Amino acid sequence: MNLMKNKVADYIITGQWAKKAYQEAQMYGKANAIASSADKTFSYIPDCSDLPISEDADYVYICENNTIYGTKFKELPNTKGKTLVADVSSCFLSEPVDVTKYGVIYGGVQKNIGPAGVVIVIIREDLITEDVLEGTPTMLRYKIHADAKSLYNTPPAYGIYICGKVFKWIKEMGGLEAMKAHNEKKAKILYDFLDESKLFKGTVEKKDRSLMNVPFVTGNEELDAKFVKEAKEAGFENLKGHRSVGGMRASIYNAMPIEGVEKLVEFMKKFEAENM
Amino acid sequence: MNLMKNKVADYIITGQWAKKAYQEAQMYGKANAIASSADKTFSYIPDCSDLPISEDADYVYICENNTIYGTKFKELPNTKGKTLVADVSSCFLSEPVDVTKYGVIYGGVQKNIGPAGVVIVIIREDLITEDVLEGTPTMLRYKIHADAKSLYNTPPAYGIYICGKVFKWIKEMGGLEAMKAHNEKKAKILYDFLDESKLFKGTVEKKDRSLMNVPFVTGNEELDAKFVKEAKEAGFENLKGHRSVGGMRASIYNAMPIEGVEKLVEFMKKFEAENM
Repeated sequence: MNLMKNKVADYIITGQWAKKAYQEAQMYGKANAIASSADKTFSYIPDCSDLPISEDADYVYICENNTIYGTKFKELPNTKGKTLVADVSSCFLSEPVDVTKYGVIYGGVQKNIGPAGVVIVIIREDLITEDVLEGTPTMLRYKIHADAKSLYNTPPAYGIYICGKVFKWIKEMGGLEAMKAHNEKKAKILYDFLDESKLFKGTVEKKDRSLMNVPFVTGNEELDAKFVKEAKEAGFENLKGHRSVGGMRASIYNAMPIEGVEKLVEFMKKFEAENM
Repeated sequence: MNLMKNKVADYIITGQWAKKAYQEAQMYGKANAIASSADKTFSYIPDCSDLPISEDADYVYICENNTIYGTKFKELPNTKGKTLVADVSSCFLSEPVDVTKYGVIYGGVQKNIGPAGVVIVIIREDLITEDVLEGTPTMLRYKIHADAKSLYNTPPAYGIYICGKVFKWIKEMGGLEAMKAHNEKKAKILYDFLDESKLFKGTVEKKDRSLMNVPFVTGNEELDAKFVKEAKEAGFENLKGHRSVGGMRASIYNAMPIEGVEKLVEFMKKFEAENM
């Protein structure tokens, strides 16, 4: 509603959130799905090097990390000069970000930053204008919030306070470069095991694997259910995959220590030995 | 956007929030200001027993307690059968509410219920429909949230948890009847003093005085500033009135103990003795 000056926008559909954003945009103008990985249950990121970007597109949208499917854009799409808008809810602060490549970066903070109820928006200044779609509620106008320095509404002070503590923690840990190294180390332990396991296998194309969300399956639904149950009994929470994909998913956000991943792999090895 | 089926709504303007709501509604239809107390800096509630309610009004709007000005609707307006919509942000849970008299009750929780970042809506079931204004964002549709049992978005769990604790505290205190008695007792201490003081006086018509927010002045701006400064030094926070009205304002929400009000009156008496 803030960006659709020409009422045209291009969407790259890589999962549920991209799909919802695409459907929402259809209320306000012409939304084009210029690429999609729906054909293989969103298990990969489409080649975005030469997409049919609309000539009058106000922006190109991506959901950069797909929580449910475990994919991540390792390379940003070639938008051919159009503004890139990215939902980064599940990868923000997991590694360094070159903000100059985006027009809008936005996301809920509840994965890597703080408690649910706070939203972060990084927007290029020239995109903050009064020229928004007719009927855009005041509370949804970027200019209102930018002019009021994010104090237009009563701010959720507790949530913001916790975000501040997490920012300091990230700095103390060595910043985003250190976060990236930390997350790559964690993800490698899990992916390496998946690649050598005879029982478990990852569901995502290797080149597109997320550092944050690692979906995997045994290939047998009953065995999947048994694994989730026994893992829960052993103290591993939330390993059940999203209902739309089934199987398992390990979410290893910034806050997950290496030991957490090591213990999970240990448990998976034990389960494999007992069930092969 | 959810209620404007005829695109007509009547607003009773008793302060800043009513004014903002009225202005916002003008974006979506015909919003009528059918009563206002702007003529006397919103220091009273207009007579609402026989207002020119619009024949095709979708609803009649009030802001039930006006935080900045310290007024409260002691009697709900006669809406002549039209749906009543009330922003109750600064009086919710301060006393019993007959929900059957309203179509929509809504408010931020940050006064009497919990930390900023949670919103409460009580809506009559027949008003929850898919028939909303074209272009209403999905996140702003009551039906979406009702159908999803308030879990359409990732809920701000910490804030909701604290609200739950406050609900339990209110029950332990004896419920809303007890809250009302508690709040009336507190407010009486302050209003009784204001009525007998030679230095301080309340700014609101007696019949419309809020139980939550008590604005007062000395009649001398320099003395007001001196009072706010010395009160702050003595440990009384946030006594400065809103910039749009000046003077002082004591907010005595549910969480304020009687001792807090007693100590404030004690301090005011001392200040009066020293400055008369």
